[in-house]
Amino acid sequence: MQKIRVHNFSLSADGFGAGPNQDLNNPLGIGGMAVHEWFFPTNVFQRMIGNAGGETGLDNDFALKAFINVGACIMGRNMFGPIRGNWPNDEWKGWWGEEPPYHCPVYVLTNHAREPIVMKGGTTFYFVTEGIDIALQRAKESAGSKDIQICGGVKTIQQYLKAKLIDEMHLVISPIILGSGERLFENTDLVQLGYKVIEHKFSGKAMHLIISKS
Amino acid sequence: MQKIRVHNFSLSADGFGAGPNQDLNNPLGIGGMAVHEWFFPTNVFQRMIGNAGGETGLDNDFALKAFINVGACIMGRNMFGPIRGNWPNDEWKGWWGEEPPYHCPVYVLTNHAREPIVMKGGTTFYFVTEGIDIALQRAKESAGSKDIQICGGVKTIQQYLKAKLIDEMHLVISPIILGSGERLFENTDLVQLGYKVIEHKFSGKAMHLIISKS
Repeated sequence: MQKIRVHNFSLSADGFGAGPNQDLNNPLGIGGMAVHEWFFPTNVFQRMIGNAGGETGLDNDFALKAFINVGACIMGRNMFGPIRGNWPNDEWKGWWGEEPPYHCPVYVLTNHAREPIVMKGGTTFYFVTEGIDIALQRAKESAGSKDIQICGGVKTIQQYLKAKLIDEMHLVISPIILGSGERLFENTDLVQLGYKVIEHKFSGKAMHLIISKS
Repeated sequence: MQKIRVHNFSLSADGFGAGPNQDLNNPLGIGGMAVHEWFFPTNVFQRMIGNAGGETGLDNDFALKAFINVGACIMGRNMFGPIRGNWPNDEWKGWWGEEPPYHCPVYVLTNHAREPIVMKGGTTFYFVTEGIDIALQRAKESAGSKDIQICGGVKTIQQYLKAKLIDEMHLVISPIILGSGERLFENTDLVQLGYKVIEHKFSGKAMHLIISKS
């Protein structure tokens, strides 16, 4: 059965998925890259940036799941880039270079329409202005029998959680504090929404949780 | 140098130090005991409840630090018991039986005056109605050269954090979600207050963080 999944979504120990003041130099806000420190040494990430090697083991096993059986992705506009308001031109094509690591259709939630962008390696960015339900419907049409990944950021995941549309969420709690930024659990009571932790593992670098709808 | 320390303060992965609706049957609110699951099997806790044995290792090593070189404790009234408002009588003497595990003076922050209670084993509960600074001053006078432990709960720790009076804080993040309750990091930006993580360790059951003033 087709699932709606979140993977490799990393939080600081004080609950922030990104730091404050996101901009071109700080894609995850100030200090926010540190929530991903468990991820960068993995084989999965090292291959993404064109390197051989990288670490295998627990962190890598979890990281890898985001890339298996995913037929379409959905992300918020702030995850796609630092531009706010109207698109000034068509230059910005995401943070990920010419060949993004998605290799499937990616639906970007935005209030500002834009033509699709075909990238190398199978990723096409589609811009959806009609909200989360229509984005999910289009993602399902693209994905066939494969799953849908909700990539982030915090506000996008919150919207899908509150609509009880996410089946499974892999969270990674990193041993850092950010102090401020975007808080995943703000006004989002996972227990009341019917979610529970069904698996937890500790690597030497982070706490991995699998949270699922009851 | 005398330090003001927090130890064994446990939080759910979604940031709650206690669940909602604390009462006589739920000292840590509904579901809140689960944040301490790492602690119950330890030798430190098993000895507290009169058992031999219990687990040694990383969790126990951290647990033990709360009981070394502490000359006085401070806690909030909600940690002392479930009674709110005026004391109806002198019957309630804390959750911990005749011999509480503190073995030193314990200053209880409250708006409702009450005579001190002398317990077995060196613990005396003093009730302080003049706020956190006076409580700390009295704790310091009692502790001599030893340290002061701020025991909890969430609101008491927040008050001392915001006053930048805590030198070192041991937090334990448990792999559970509570959904609602008392959130330690609510309106409490540790980075802005000058705190940082100086040590982290993962046991098989929880993530331990030592947070210190820069």
